[in-house]
Amino acid sequence: MITLATDFGSPYPAAMRGVILGACDARIVDITHEFPRQDVQTAAFWLREVLPYYPPAVHCAVVDPGVGTDRAALLVRAGEHLLVGPDNGLLLPAARALSERIDIFEWQYESPDSTTFHGRDVFAPAAAAVHEHSIAELDRARPTDEYVDHAFPEPELREQEVIGTVLVVDGFGNVITNIPGTVLDACNESVMVNEERVPVERAYAQLEPNSRLVTVGSHGNVELAVNQGRGDRAFDLDTGDAVRLEL
Amino acid sequence: MITLATDFGSPYPAAMRGVILGACDARIVDITHEFPRQDVQTAAFWLREVLPYYPPAVHCAVVDPGVGTDRAALLVRAGEHLLVGPDNGLLLPAARALSERIDIFEWQYESPDSTTFHGRDVFAPAAAAVHEHSIAELDRARPTDEYVDHAFPEPELREQEVIGTVLVVDGFGNVITNIPGTVLDACNESVMVNEERVPVERAYAQLEPNSRLVTVGSHGNVELAVNQGRGDRAFDLDTGDAVRLEL
Amino acid sequence: MITLATDFGSPYPAAMRGVILGACDARIVDITHEFPRQDVQTAAFWLREVLPYYPPAVHCAVVDPGVGTDRAALLVRAGEHLLVGPDNGLLLPAARALSERIDIFEWQYESPDSTTFHGRDVFAPAAAAVHEHSIAELDRARPTDEYVDHAFPEPELREQEVIGTVLVVDGFGNVITNIPGTVLDACNESVMVNEERVPVERAYAQLEPNSRLVTVGSHGNVELAVNQGRGDRAFDLDTGDAVRLEL
Repeated sequence: MITLATDFGSPYPAAMRGVILGACDARIVDITHEFPRQDVQTAAFWLREVLPYYPPAVHCAVVDPGVGTDRAALLVRAGEHLLVGPDNGLLLPAARALSERIDIFEWQYESPDSTTFHGRDVFAPAAAAVHEHSIAELDRARPTDEYVDHAFPEPELREQEVIGTVLVVDGFGNVITNIPGTVLDACNESVMVNEERVPVERAYAQLEPNSRLVTVGSHGNVELAVNQGRGDRAFDLDTGDAVRLEL
Repeated sequence: MITLATDFGSPYPAAMRGVILGACDARIVDITHEFPRQDVQTAAFWLREVLPYYPPAVHCAVVDPGVGTDRAALLVRAGEHLLVGPDNGLLLPAARALSERIDIFEWQYESPDSTTFHGRDVFAPAAAAVHEHSIAELDRARPTDEYVDHAFPEPELREQEVIGTVLVVDGFGNVITNIPGTVLDACNESVMVNEERVPVERAYAQLEPNSRLVTVGSHGNVELAVNQGRGDRAFDLDTGDAVRLEL
Repeated sequence: MITLATDFGSPYPAAMRGVILGACDARIVDITHEFPRQDVQTAAFWLREVLPYYPPAVHCAVVDPGVGTDRAALLVRAGEHLLVGPDNGLLLPAARALSERIDIFEWQYESPDSTTFHGRDVFAPAAAAVHEHSIAELDRARPTDEYVDHAFPEPELREQEVIGTVLVVDGFGNVITNIPGTVLDACNESVMVNEERVPVERAYAQLEPNSRLVTVGSHGNVELAVNQGRGDRAFDLDTGDAVRLEL
């Protein structure tokens, strides 16, 4: 199985699928091709959330603002999973979520046909190659400890207060923070969010439509939402903004 | 075969695919993940239109504004098809289109990991489980006659006049009504639509680009369209609006 | 293998998948369903770019503003590939990119259920049929030399100047012209684009974010882009616009 995750929209991913189907008989599963364009952090967040639900697979992920420069290509082994993609931090959070031990290899790719579409010309062929052969046989991959890592910002947890950050806004408009949901354990009814009191609820529909609420999202983090509406608009928050909770 | 249909956009459906692929070897076919968010009626309409073209399969459909509340989960047997989803009316029109006889079961799901993403934590596992086992073996499913049904509004058919409703607007902007196409059988050339005369045509391209027309859509209902344009804008109509035809 | 490429968005392609899955056991691969609506030239461009990366397959492509009129349906044999779609020029550029010799057949389809959705009622069944049988057995296909062809506009190449045209704008906003990338071989540093000097770069990221640049895209043509931004907006160009390069 080879999964594909990019910010390419349409129709570029179809060329990647063709390359893979011409090279091997793997099942291809699309994670998404709608990551926000060139937003490595958001893509890294979603890969970390989604890939652990998969059985062992080769995961080919490409959000690659540095395409065509001298940025390296990585292979990361995480338990029985292999991740393939550019060396810009994209793969590491997911790899660590997949396995306690990860091994990182640099892939020495030959000069590809294009300087602007390594998804098709570098990463899809690499994914097919590692799917067909064990990584040890791939003589162009060598272990490396020089790579770009990615760390999500950490919240500041104080006694009565948490200062967090918006990590991503999902397609429903739900505002996903970096604040662990457990901080709400002691909040029975409501919490102050950026100076305004907001109810804490287990489910969106426990309030009237268009009501604002704080909940614990499916990722386990504190999420700011609106029942049947958009939390990002109601709270006026976007990726990178600060969120201050008073408990 | 397991089909997936949701309003989740991206990338949440990828977690559902992972759960299913980890649990069974079924072929996964995406119906869509772009249903209008939390719009049960529109999703129920499209499921009824599309699923009858499928060979026997497990259909997992999730448009679920009540996620995390005490709304039940249903399994519906319709001939050789099985439908899995929330108890909010979503599944019933499609089930009845698939088979004259349907059997409805309530699925007693265990408390899932999340209160906001039962697509991943309840319905995807249920779809994989019913795919692997016959429904009779699933001891947590019991026949029920208490469930939320869904009926589309019926048009009023009078002698020279029909009062209908816009059921959905498709991605081209075509306005799909609940009026059966057969009412146009007697209209050779044109019909009055909300007080304006509009030509009746078999095909969009029988008029100049940007011309308004009335036709019978692929669903068999009266459709208001614009050749190479958007009917919803030209007729100023949206879901739920009234449409009055004078024949 | 059957590939699907349409401008249908969602959820119409799901009906095509169902028809195919009910008729044969082919692997289905989506090229895209997000071609700009009713834009035959853009779809023909992308099919020509993408299909050559595929192993032998049946390619079912439907961008069909003439649906329901008397426009014919074509089968095109291009080496080991078969293309199925409407007779409006859509298939020909891809077919010629797939094989030096192509054979064109007209498919005499029976009157379908709908006049507005031949993707479901004509082309999906035809794709399944040719996947299951050799084309020679399909008695309703006969060789034809009467068909609608499509030629992309040719650039005017002069000594110090090229006059080209914007063929398509991709989802990143990159402006893809019909000018072969080789014209930039002699341009070391920059080129005049519509009277303004723009740097020539191998990769988007060789300049600061939001900088304009000229590059050779993955299709081999001259592309006008903005690093981490939209070239179409920065250069104020859209499909069909003229692009004049001074070398």
